[in-house]
Amino acid sequence: MKIAEIPATNLDAKEFIRKRAREIAETVGDGSAITAVSGGVDSSVVTMLGHMGLGDKLKACFIDNGLMRQDEPQAVARIFRRLGIHVEVLDARKAFFDALKGIRDPEEKREAITQTFYKKVFGSLFKGIGARFLLQGTILTDVEETVAGVKRQHNVLEQLGIDPQEAFGYRVIEPLLQLRKDGVRKVAKALGLPVTVYKRMPFPGPALAARVVGEASPERIELVRKATAIVEAELRGSKAFQYMAILHEDRFAGMRDGKRDFGMQIEIRCWRSIDARTAKPVWLAPRTLQSLARRLTADVPGVVSVTYNIATKPPSTMEAV
Amino acid sequence: MKIAEIPATNLDAKEFIRKRAREIAETVGDGSAITAVSGGVDSSVVTMLGHMGLGDKLKACFIDNGLMRQDEPQAVARIFRRLGIHVEVLDARKAFFDALKGIRDPEEKREAITQTFYKKVFGSLFKGIGARFLLQGTILTDVEETVAGVKRQHNVLEQLGIDPQEAFGYRVIEPLLQLRKDGVRKVAKALGLPVTVYKRMPFPGPALAARVVGEASPERIELVRKATAIVEAELRGSKAFQYMAILHEDRFAGMRDGKRDFGMQIEIRCWRSIDARTAKPVWLAPRTLQSLARRLTADVPGVVSVTYNIATKPPSTMEAV
Repeated sequence: MKIAEIPATNLDAKEFIRKRAREIAETVGDGSAITAVSGGVDSSVVTMLGHMGLGDKLKACFIDNGLMRQDEPQAVARIFRRLGIHVEVLDARKAFFDALKGIRDPEEKREAITQTFYKKVFGSLFKGIGARFLLQGTILTDVEETVAGVKRQHNVLEQLGIDPQEAFGYRVIEPLLQLRKDGVRKVAKALGLPVTVYKRMPFPGPALAARVVGEASPERIELVRKATAIVEAELRGSKAFQYMAILHEDRFAGMRDGKRDFGMQIEIRCWRSIDARTAKPVWLAPRTLQSLARRLTADVPGVVSVTYNIATKPPSTMEAV
Repeated sequence: MKIAEIPATNLDAKEFIRKRAREIAETVGDGSAITAVSGGVDSSVVTMLGHMGLGDKLKACFIDNGLMRQDEPQAVARIFRRLGIHVEVLDARKAFFDALKGIRDPEEKREAITQTFYKKVFGSLFKGIGARFLLQGTILTDVEETVAGVKRQHNVLEQLGIDPQEAFGYRVIEPLLQLRKDGVRKVAKALGLPVTVYKRMPFPGPALAARVVGEASPERIELVRKATAIVEAELRGSKAFQYMAILHEDRFAGMRDGKRDFGMQIEIRCWRSIDARTAKPVWLAPRTLQSLARRLTADVPGVVSVTYNIATKPPSTMEAV
């Protein structure tokens, strides 16, 4: 089934909100629903719509999969507390790292995260609560890229022929399916979400696991988490669409204290883009690049080399794996 | 034994040339010597000094190990033909690729090249000719970095306790041992070598094998050779100390014709440096970086991603592996 796009320019945000909140209420009826908040604009908007439609019948969870950025679970819960919505942080780190152990192929990593998320963690959560619906923030670009085979988005299920009711025991509601990122941002603003949410950078479903080449072990995730904190602190003022740190698996010659030190490389990407379909690198100032390289080699243990991505999407993609 | 450095500023190039040519003549006596020309300034200077000291008793060879840049063997032979020196190109590609097969560790790659060079190719060359001396352009920085353990230079033997007479059956003469790169360039100029030689960029002993992460197979060397030709063409006017293309082993998400294309990454390095002991990246203009990325992704098959190195030496080194 072809999804009818609602372009951001044609979007009446207030009307969209009213309509979707009502639809959610009608679909869920007397039951209850769960939403997984990630801190991203898509899931935040869905949580707000769900809250409007369902009130206390919506349970908002933040699944701490161990792959999130520094202090992210607490920061997200704090934002929603201010909006009057309680977000419960569930510690699922062990389940995810167990599932990711020894996996190096990017598609297998994504699949391990999808399965752990929908089947293991959510499966038992739904059973515990007796909820029958999952609200999630899938957008049109996610579906298109997954169906086209560019990138398997973790939240795309039915379009791949997966029946969540049958596979996981609950139904999925996707109120943002007709929007792209710019449309979602417009709705977020109209919902009164803080600017830190509706202007928040896109962050991938597999989180920091998408930012390491090769195995996403707890140790490697910790390294890329440190690098991500540095890159985000340095580039916060850049007005870029998205910026990130990627930990490579290749090793490179380096030297410390006059001795050979065969170490790691961090790649930085900083994109200009409107809707994520195409993107170009931002040409950062030399002093910014200098500062990034200095901090990453000084503060991330074992890093001897830092690069900046200069290709465009296409033929690159915005995320590395 | 500590080597007494002759700093470039104190160097009397004409005097140095006279003295070294005479010493070579005295050492070789009635015998004959071989020199391996690589096209680099070090080996070119040594070849000129050897030619001055020995005349026809010097055999100048270019070992085509299959790891050289595009058209390099022919270009080097042509330069020396103009200077009245015949350089014989020896096709040793099979010997080197056989030795490199399946080797991924950088130190093992270097060792395989060293062994093939000194033992296999040169061993039989010396036997065939009956020469007893190899003239080579080892400089002080090579020795220091090898002894300090920063990087094993292929041409450093005795300082590592290797007796070439015993190990390979010939003696090594190293007339440039007291100089660094800037001193060698001064001598090259005084010798009348063309500017393309004495201002030529440093190029590593293991050649393009040092520019691929992982196995240096004929296919991967061919890819990095194509990338190198593009990077050198684009950056020729940059006045940088050294610039290069590096083929990574890590794979990255990419897209072509709307489909996923899990492809390769090329890293570009372009260094500012005086003597190679420390180095900083050159901050290239955005249009140069754009053009590099466009050409590398369009013309090198399978490349979807291009990065630019922004770290300094230390903690990086100039070459990748």
